[in-house]
Amino acid sequence: MASPESAVLTEMFKNVGARLSADPPIGLDSVREIFDCMLRFATEAEGVSYRSDRTGPVPGMWAFPPDAVSDAVILYLHGGGYISGSTSGHRRLFAHLAKESGVRAFAIDYRLAPEHLFPAQLDDARAAYDHLLAQGYAPQRIAVVGDSAGGSLATALGLHLADGGQPSPAAIVAMSPYYDVLGEGETFVTNVDNDVVAPPAAAMEPSAAVYLGDPARARTDHYVNPLISDPSGLPPMLLTCGGYECLLSGVETFAELARSKGVKVELDVAPEMQHVFQFLVGHAPEATESVARISEFIRTSLNDSGRAAAAAPSSGGGGDDDLGGSSRC
Amino acid sequence: MASPESAVLTEMFKNVGARLSADPPIGLDSVREIFDCMLRFATEAEGVSYRSDRTGPVPGMWAFPPDAVSDAVILYLHGGGYISGSTSGHRRLFAHLAKESGVRAFAIDYRLAPEHLFPAQLDDARAAYDHLLAQGYAPQRIAVVGDSAGGSLATALGLHLADGGQPSPAAIVAMSPYYDVLGEGETFVTNVDNDVVAPPAAAMEPSAAVYLGDPARARTDHYVNPLISDPSGLPPMLLTCGGYECLLSGVETFAELARSKGVKVELDVAPEMQHVFQFLVGHAPEATESVARISEFIRTSLNDSGRAAAAAPSSGGGGDDDLGGSSRC
Repeated sequence: MASPESAVLTEMFKNVGARLSADPPIGLDSVREIFDCMLRFATEAEGVSYRSDRTGPVPGMWAFPPDAVSDAVILYLHGGGYISGSTSGHRRLFAHLAKESGVRAFAIDYRLAPEHLFPAQLDDARAAYDHLLAQGYAPQRIAVVGDSAGGSLATALGLHLADGGQPSPAAIVAMSPYYDVLGEGETFVTNVDNDVVAPPAAAMEPSAAVYLGDPARARTDHYVNPLISDPSGLPPMLLTCGGYECLLSGVETFAELARSKGVKVELDVAPEMQHVFQFLVGHAPEATESVARISEFIRTSLNDSGRAAAAAPSSGGGGDDDLGGSSRC
Repeated sequence: MASPESAVLTEMFKNVGARLSADPPIGLDSVREIFDCMLRFATEAEGVSYRSDRTGPVPGMWAFPPDAVSDAVILYLHGGGYISGSTSGHRRLFAHLAKESGVRAFAIDYRLAPEHLFPAQLDDARAAYDHLLAQGYAPQRIAVVGDSAGGSLATALGLHLADGGQPSPAAIVAMSPYYDVLGEGETFVTNVDNDVVAPPAAAMEPSAAVYLGDPARARTDHYVNPLISDPSGLPPMLLTCGGYECLLSGVETFAELARSKGVKVELDVAPEMQHVFQFLVGHAPEATESVARISEFIRTSLNDSGRAAAAAPSSGGGGDDDLGGSSRC
């Protein structure tokens, strides 16, 4: 049974849903502020410090856990439907993941739609990954982690690297990934009364127009829709999803597809949980336990594949502490 | 002349103002989210780590700079008109102040109006102060710092302690304090075209009803309106204000009043700056320089008065990392 503490996420999503469907609709500024406050119930990851970094091709934020190794890194890609979310808003989540994994994290403020249509987000994720390589991090010492649209983006980055014949990261973790962009999975029917945040199935393809321009690309672009991809080149993956999510069947379908192509995929479904329930890390036990399991997967993956890692990078990213206008709260 | 970087605060306030005066008006949830994103342009204070703390009478967040002394503390009171703001939203500001002052900070999530009318905010500030004393911090090793309504609250806490014959903190710092609650100062006329965020003078007293219940108390309660107080018992103060603020003359009036009663008051007016321009710390030079000056004042005040401090507290606050629902983003 869901913990009493987990109820606050349900209430928060219901509130957001009511405001998103208000007449007149709320503006994009409000949507972004709402999503930058989604981790209000999470706790601080004690001991972790941060650095704003705009020295690379994509601005971002480093999280430095105490006593973390210096030659491995989590590249974190936040969610928010490609139109919202930020490193500031998701800070507490990637800080906990970094601390429990024992590695630093670099979260990026990739460009958002509709100002920047997809694949700007993928381009930025790739540029940030390449920049980590240029700083001396070996692919086998990088874990790419994301939630919601960021989980799909993490997967797309893995596909993009494989398509180009580039070395894969050690692992990909996708929390409640936004794979079923067309809303075709059965849980869009069976979970319709359980999921308090997903749009109706019929609204899924039209809503993709906001970040794609042409929503028909959701049927043809495997970086937006990994369900039509060939995932055979992907590294080991951990996928998590709430049992109450409409997105669940899409995650299960992708897991089956990837396994059929020889990819090592773990799928962790948390009963009765909502979308990215890890937002409650430190508050609800389901979230805290999931973050612990994800971190164990990251540690193991980095250790399994990282023994041949290149020399440790000399620094954790540039020293310029001026993030400028690219981050939010 | 104002730096180019400082223009983003002006633009942000204009955007907020337009949305606050929209028809229909935005809801309280949106107001709080907006104010929790006001520090989006500030940078992270590198090396500082955090701890959520709900072990005391008022929940809050600790900021621990590297190499800070352990026997002194900044009690930070955020702004937001008593109805909004949070430790999460103001984190980057008190983190920079803590780091540059070389002391830890404890910022509190005091109860907000209209759910909790004034003086709930003052009661919480006092309870947090007393809890710091109970943890072993000596009054002369505590600096009380706040911005906007939090600056007025810091002053009210000083008055409340003096009224009760209790030992004062080493210093009070108020950034753009919300002293002129009635909008009677001349800068409500002379800066009306410069200040992009202050309400019209005629709206000031009515708007106090939101947190007072009865707005007439703005004329009789010296904790809400320090301009009618006897400040003679206050410790050394540093007041800062933007030169473009409608609140400026109220700050000047209070400074004169306090000096006339023997209080040591420094007043730092930043030409052409808007309300709490320190929100741009790390981004705009005026903000970064002001934070440096404030930190120097805090360091000096703690050193001047702290030589007889009690033994260092054994810890930086409770170890419970579960902040629960009291914080936002």
